[in-house]
Amino acid sequence: MSQDARGDAGTDKRPGDLRRTGMSLKSDREWDYELDRIIDAIEERDAATVGLQFPEGLKRRAPKVADDLRQLTDGVRFLISGQPCYGACDLDTELMRRTDVFVHFGHSPMKESDKIIYVPLFSNVDPFPIMEEALEELPDVDTAGDSDVDDRPAVGLVTTAQHMNKFGEMHEWLEERGYAVETRRGDERLTHEGQVLGCNYASADVDAETVLYVGGGKFHPLGLAMEHPDKHVVIADPVNNVVDVADTEKFIKQRYGAVHRAMDADSWGVLYCTKIGQGRWEMATEIVENNENAYLITMDEITPDRLRNFGCDAYVNTGCPRITTDDGPQFHKPMLTPGEYEIAVGNEPLDSLEFDTFHGTW
Amino acid sequence: MSQDARGDAGTDKRPGDLRRTGMSLKSDREWDYELDRIIDAIEERDAATVGLQFPEGLKRRAPKVADDLRQLTDGVRFLISGQPCYGACDLDTELMRRTDVFVHFGHSPMKESDKIIYVPLFSNVDPFPIMEEALEELPDVDTAGDSDVDDRPAVGLVTTAQHMNKFGEMHEWLEERGYAVETRRGDERLTHEGQVLGCNYASADVDAETVLYVGGGKFHPLGLAMEHPDKHVVIADPVNNVVDVADTEKFIKQRYGAVHRAMDADSWGVLYCTKIGQGRWEMATEIVENNENAYLITMDEITPDRLRNFGCDAYVNTGCPRITTDDGPQFHKPMLTPGEYEIAVGNEPLDSLEFDTFHGTW
Repeated sequence: MSQDARGDAGTDKRPGDLRRTGMSLKSDREWDYELDRIIDAIEERDAATVGLQFPEGLKRRAPKVADDLRQLTDGVRFLISGQPCYGACDLDTELMRRTDVFVHFGHSPMKESDKIIYVPLFSNVDPFPIMEEALEELPDVDTAGDSDVDDRPAVGLVTTAQHMNKFGEMHEWLEERGYAVETRRGDERLTHEGQVLGCNYASADVDAETVLYVGGGKFHPLGLAMEHPDKHVVIADPVNNVVDVADTEKFIKQRYGAVHRAMDADSWGVLYCTKIGQGRWEMATEIVENNENAYLITMDEITPDRLRNFGCDAYVNTGCPRITTDDGPQFHKPMLTPGEYEIAVGNEPLDSLEFDTFHGTW
Repeated sequence: MSQDARGDAGTDKRPGDLRRTGMSLKSDREWDYELDRIIDAIEERDAATVGLQFPEGLKRRAPKVADDLRQLTDGVRFLISGQPCYGACDLDTELMRRTDVFVHFGHSPMKESDKIIYVPLFSNVDPFPIMEEALEELPDVDTAGDSDVDDRPAVGLVTTAQHMNKFGEMHEWLEERGYAVETRRGDERLTHEGQVLGCNYASADVDAETVLYVGGGKFHPLGLAMEHPDKHVVIADPVNNVVDVADTEKFIKQRYGAVHRAMDADSWGVLYCTKIGQGRWEMATEIVENNENAYLITMDEITPDRLRNFGCDAYVNTGCPRITTDDGPQFHKPMLTPGEYEIAVGNEPLDSLEFDTFHGTW
């Protein structure tokens, strides 16, 4: 399908084209900030200072949420985190230390704590129209005959924290259309049954050749397909209004390109991320201890600008895998996952390349 | 003097033009990393982990310094800070917590601590050729007569941490040329007699109408001239090989421009910087408590990207003043110093505008 806008487009729609879908009306999303639950926690703990942390896309709402909370309280000081935030693994621990109650918006809990209130902020986008379109990519259901329940085609179902509130409905919806829906919770890094993170696809380890991913973007289904190469991963993206099938070929080529460019490196920067849920200390120190040309560099945000000042020939990122695999091409030097590093230095064969994932909390 | 390159330039030199000065040979500077002192501290404290922090311009040297230290020790783990660093006020406290000894390179001590080794890294650029040129901008000395010592013209002398190792020689050099050289230490934020920081010019509060600043860049002398508007500030810049006189007019216009643009703001982001030596908590909270349209935002690095996600109409920076006054124009919304904020909201008159400075340590 052409990527160009076509004024006379028929049934073809480009990814993100929300015209004639009814969905464009929903672009002005409303969120439930669960103010009552926050106020309860403030009163229960008699909090004098409260920290508020939002992911990047929702930071703009912070002043209004602070206004609402100020109206509902008396003499409580609200502090808004200005640190970048990309997940429940990425809590502003500095602000947490400074406050009596710390509210983390936009992600589901990674680890319960007495001080942290997680407010997940579920999307109110309707996933069913795009799931309807995605049926074409799922196994055929024998609609004519009255086949046995045991013969129904199996389909795995996963989604992101944002759409988790509709997971039960999605499950039922697929069952009604004749599928045996396979789901599981994954490991303790994941809060919910069927939930995936950019760094954890354990919930897709189900007894089904096809997995339906309902959610925004291509990064999650790509990771899922890399982590489970035997599975057919269908994308129903209700945010960009597009159906697709995860294709790992381009991704794998990009990763091998980075590995090959790093093979000549004389010096390695080994990045240890100090964010609370993104540190893999053993992994980072083991690399440095076994390579005299490797240097341990610690930081919270891992950005191209920050690495530009160091003169290493290549980098290994033991922090968030998304930085390596999604932002990787933005760095001026090759940036590898720990597994890719082992290939580049010759400790592991080329065909051992796989997606970098995180398990456990902290 | 024209800012354009002139192939047939005679005696005119553009700032930064190091041709025919002999100084271009010195561009490959050597630094003394004081490895012996670091090794002594490691042995004395029987340290297992050592943190190394370099300012931005010297981060490239970090792997080589780590190599040298590894050769001189046995079984010690060296961690390099990847956090941006812009001064002795800007210690990587996260890395400090994780290490037994913490070495901060490139700045003079702001506050002594048992764990921190400060290695100042003095420049080996020769300041005297450019000081010779700067004599033209200093008060005339009566070289013909044999005037009394008490009649010698007074000149204040200040420099940055980088050139502090030559301060005594500079002092003598000026005295030999007939000046009464006035210097003082300033307050406890400053380590040395005659030292200035971008945020502190207390050492220039001397009994002399003319102050000679020896050092790189225009930011320090500009701050000095703003902080001491009654003084004539002469710049002898041995790094860029240029003599100049600090002119605050353009700077003041830029600041008033920001203040005026901020006067219509309906919402204010009040930035509290969490860096150890850059926090002004009382100042930040006082603003928020007296303005219901002000929101307290906490972060370590204050960058245009980080503020872009917040929807405030204007910002007040209670952290490093250089961010406001030097980087200010890069932000998408007006960014004011705390003093400028008071003008913008009408609490102080327009003519109260002054340079934002920091006093004390933490």
